[in-house]
Amino acid sequence: MFKKVDVITMGLDKVSNSPVVFLRIEHTNIGLPIWIGACEATYLALAINEQKTPRPLTHDLLLNILEKEGYFLKKIEIINMENDIYYSNIFLEKEENEIIIDSRPSDALILAIKSKIPIYVKDKLVIENGIDISFIPIDEHKNEDEENKRREFKEFLENF
Amino acid sequence: MFKKVDVITMGLDKVSNSPVVFLRIEHTNIGLPIWIGACEATYLALAINEQKTPRPLTHDLLLNILEKEGYFLKKIEIINMENDIYYSNIFLEKEENEIIIDSRPSDALILAIKSKIPIYVKDKLVIENGIDISFIPIDEHKNEDEENKRREFKEFLENF
Repeated sequence: MFKKVDVITMGLDKVSNSPVVFLRIEHTNIGLPIWIGACEATYLALAINEQKTPRPLTHDLLLNILEKEGYFLKKIEIINMENDIYYSNIFLEKEENEIIIDSRPSDALILAIKSKIPIYVKDKLVIENGIDISFIPIDEHKNEDEENKRREFKEFLENF
Repeated sequence: MFKKVDVITMGLDKVSNSPVVFLRIEHTNIGLPIWIGACEATYLALAINEQKTPRPLTHDLLLNILEKEGYFLKKIEIINMENDIYYSNIFLEKEENEIIIDSRPSDALILAIKSKIPIYVKDKLVIENGIDISFIPIDEHKNEDEENKRREFKEFLENF
């Protein structure tokens, strides 16, 4: 079974000095932390903040190809963790045929956010690796105006 | 008309502190310099050095989807420059249908190198922006052993 993710937030793990993404499980204060690379974090932050870029980034290129060829993104699933590496699947559909593609979570998340498709996490991962993320002021973010968002985003990028 | 590229080398522009790619035009000492981002340069260097990664990077993900769905990459073309931004096209084929996709040169080059497909540059760009790159010791690189290649690659990454 899978749990749905309703909020994605990002931070910087000060111990490992690595970007970390928290996937909050719907109707809970539990978040699954996933450590990702600096470049991947930059692209994920751009996606979360819906920042437009003058030219297509790599994930836009991928989505442009899929759109041009009549594929739809349905959902992504974070399905496993082995040796501290998370595995995920991207579900595509074309003419009622389902295609499942193995992916790093960072790529799957960026595509999911850009395409506004649902994100699921396997129960086992939530139970084993989920943490209480009520210390992250997620709801406050919803009331921020655009300028604050942009400022925070700029600060986030400057932290790298 | 287009010219074919036979060698791709990378460097760091010390004035702008930005990675730069040189596309050498076949049978000449002329190279087209294209400035790219730091993340893009990292992925391009990995592709040039045929470095394997434990998990698929974003361009591998794209190629995995195309392969699974029966698409072939045919070639890429660097077609235009406007306001210091280069534009390129990626040519795909499926069942004799040609698909042309707009792309940044960095993405197109990474896909071309990974897929070992030809790279072309529009004549006009070579004439207007090509420079003499005979100062770059390209031929020597061909005789280097693997260890030297790895060392140089490591140094390159450390320069960022």
